[in-house]
Order: sequence, then structure tokens, then C-alpha cells
Amino acid sequence: MEQANKDRSLVSKVMDGLVTGIVEEKYGAILPPQDVLSKEFDVSRTVMREALSMLLARDMLDVRPKIGTRIRPMSDWRMIDEDVVNWRFRAKPDPLFLRDVIEFRILIEPRASAQAASRGSAADIAAVRDAFEAFRVIRPGEPGYQEADELFHTRIVVASGNQFFKQMAAIIRGALSTANPIVNAREGAWEAAVNSHRRVVEAIERHDPKEAELASMAMIDYSSEEIAGTFASAPPVPPAPTRG
Amino acid sequence: MEQANKDRSLVSKVMDGLVTGIVEEKYGAILPPQDVLSKEFDVSRTVMREALSMLLARDMLDVRPKIGTRIRPMSDWRMIDEDVVNWRFRAKPDPLFLRDVIEFRILIEPRASAQAASRGSAADIAAVRDAFEAFRVIRPGEPGYQEADELFHTRIVVASGNQFFKQMAAIIRGALSTANPIVNAREGAWEAAVNSHRRVVEAIERHDPKEAELASMAMIDYSSEEIAGTFASAPPVPPAPTRG
Repeated sequence: MEQANKDRSLVSKVMDGLVTGIVEEKYGAILPPQDVLSKEFDVSRTVMREALSMLLARDMLDVRPKIGTRIRPMSDWRMIDEDVVNWRFRAKPDPLFLRDVIEFRILIEPRASAQAASRGSAADIAAVRDAFEAFRVIRPGEPGYQEADELFHTRIVVASGNQFFKQMAAIIRGALSTANPIVNAREGAWEAAVNSHRRVVEAIERHDPKEAELASMAMIDYSSEEIAGTFASAPPVPPAPTRG
Repeated sequence: MEQANKDRSLVSKVMDGLVTGIVEEKYGAILPPQDVLSKEFDVSRTVMREALSMLLARDMLDVRPKIGTRIRPMSDWRMIDEDVVNWRFRAKPDPLFLRDVIEFRILIEPRASAQAASRGSAADIAAVRDAFEAFRVIRPGEPGYQEADELFHTRIVVASGNQFFKQMAAIIRGALSTANPIVNAREGAWEAAVNSHRRVVEAIERHDPKEAELASMAMIDYSSEEIAGTFASAPPVPPAPTRG
């Protein structure tokens, strides 16, 4: 592993140098061509390519044909490692992991919903409504159901306007992929899901943060109970402490 | 960039295969040697090294001399990309970013403090106390002050026992590195910081989740106000909505 660590450390150094230039606004909107950068950093084209591809994978750059490598807005830079999140959710769910992810969702989603209601842009709120309309016509088990549900929840955190909440969407999607197969086995689950999702959309559209937060908590509680029942050995999720 | 993407995609495929084996508990606690793995995946040793080093960097593996490459507990797997978080905080702070990070802290830290109070282990709570005792004897500006403060806040999210909150420590540390130089310029800031931190520790030690949550909110509010004042163009952080 020593050699791998050495390669990695050179690539890391170059990445760090590139990012320093970016945050100091040395390059403007478009990075210089790869061979110019390799010379500037005095490294091989392979090392430079590797460093750039690491930044690309983190949504920090994007490649535009004929224009070059554009620096993306910092709020897009990916703070969540989605690979690791997905791997974590691919493993056999253990009770503690489920407890933790439910606790996390109960914290993030209701606040994101409240913020979507209080300051979501018209376009972001319309996108939440569109996702709901697409979701409510697909039954659980039909193709596209899971994706439609994930899109709905993702658009709510996007509408919150908070870049941290937005980035947490990857964790919320993971939680849904674990929760949905369990929740949907319940009689009447579909109607309940459509109703609980509708209540959230309507509160956001009415710009009612308090109701949006409560509606979101109700939506999550419905699935949490079912999951806690399925994994009976899971420690109970304590109720959200009431704020003074 | 095409070649870089191609290399990356082979490494990604191998990583994915390794992780599949890990989550299906195919390997047990220790991975087979690198050359055995290269043969199993039919790739060069270079590609295998690269894939392993990516997993190593994400705290999914660790290398033990004479034992081999150990698979770490999944709750250690790093869902937060700390490089990106650090880069984001290294850039000139913009008002929206500061608003977002304060909102995020206001959400995570008080809940983590409440959970530390309700279920933190004796060892985790003692570690919070130790970090406080180390923090309170260093003045702002003296060497080690920033690190001591970061350790205190990190130990609280660790004591919460929730692996997601724990991973958010990287964001909280970033927030502190931005906030502290501003807050500490204020007259009496040191005494206020020591007192507000002490209130949190004592509530956790008394296993009083409600008081721990309020104390944590008060601690964050103190620094939020100051930051909002410094970046006067920052949109105000709305008060946390009251839960029904």
C-alpha cells in the first residue's frame, strides 16, 4: 500500500494546489488547459488528469465541449460522499443504523420543509408540486415508484435553499430505499403515503412553515413506526425533544 | 479527461466489487492479500492498490502490520468528504454560506447534546468533561485554543451515539474555524464562551436532555449574533421554529 499512498499524496498535493487557486479566484470561471496546468504544477499529465478527475467527481468542475473546464458554484461542491452513503445502505440493515438514520431524517426533513415553506422560490415550490403529482399516480411496486418518491423528498430539501440540507438528500434517499419496501407491505400504505405527502406540499404552497414542519414529521413518523416494528430488536427512537 | 475517466471507471468497478464482498461478509474481518485480490478481480496490482487506497482514505479499511488489511466497522465509514468541507471553509466566506452553516449547526448540535445527555456512555461524557477542562484554561489567541474548542464540540456529537451526527463533526469544526476569530474579538468573549460551554457539560452530566439542548442553543446563538453583525449583508438566520 506504500506506493499507492505515495501516488495518492502527490495527487492530493496537486488537488490542494488547484483548489487553493480556485478559492483565491486565481483562474476565473474556466480552468487553464490541462497541459498548461501540468507545467504550472510541474507534474505529469497523468497526475494532473487524476487530480482533475477527483474534483470532477465531487461536482467541483464540469467539462463543457469547446469551452473548457468550468469551475462550478461552491454550493454545488459535494460534501457528502454518495458512494459511501450508498454502500452503507446496501449492507444488511442493523438496528442501530436504522435508529440513527431515522433520528437524522426526523431532524433534517421537517426543518427543510419549514424552510421551503418560509422562503422557497416559486420555481422550487412548483417543482415539489410536480414531483408530488408524478408520485401520486404510481402504485408501490410499479416501475418508477421508488424514484418518484426519492425525487419528491429531494426537491423539498432543495427548496429549503440551505446547501447543507440539500446535500443531505443522499442520506434521505438511502433511508427511503430501506424504508419503502417495509412500509409498503402495510395495508392502506399507498393511500396513507399519498395523503401525508399531499399535506406537506399544501403547507409549503401556503407558506406555512409550522404546518409544513408538523406535516413532514407526521410523514416520517408513519414509516418510522413500521420500521421499528419490523426490526423489533431496534432500540426505540426517542421522541423529538420539545423545544423550550 | 477521457482517459482519466476510463481509469477511474475501472477503479470504481473494483471498489464496488470489493465493497459488495465486504457488505456480504464474504471476507470476514481481514481482506485477502493484494495479489490474491488482483487475481480474483483480474486487474493489475496498480488498479487494485488504487481501489484499496480509496477505501482506506474513507476509513473503511485499516492496515495493521503483520495482521493485514482489516475491515473497519461500518459506522466508521466516512460519509462526509472532509476535503471538500475544508476547502469550502477555506474560501472567502459568503453571507449565504454562513447563514446555511449556522442553520445547520443550530439543528445538529442541540439535538446531539440532548442525546448525549439522555444516552451518552459514562466514558463519552467523561471525554466531554475532559475536553472542557482543557478548553477553559486556554485563552483565545493562545496556541491550541482552536483545537481545544473543536475537540469539545466533536466529543459532544460523538457522545450522542448517532453515527450521522458524529460524522457531521467535520462541518461543525469548519463552522468554528470561521466563527471563532470573529467571536473572540468581542470584549468578554472568553468568559462567555467558558460559561456557555460549562452549562452544556453540566447538563449532559446531569442527564438532563432538555437543559442540554437549551444550553447548546444558547452557546451557538452567542456566536451566531456576532457573525450576523460582522457580515451585515448576510440574510438574518430565522429563529428555530417552535415544535408543536
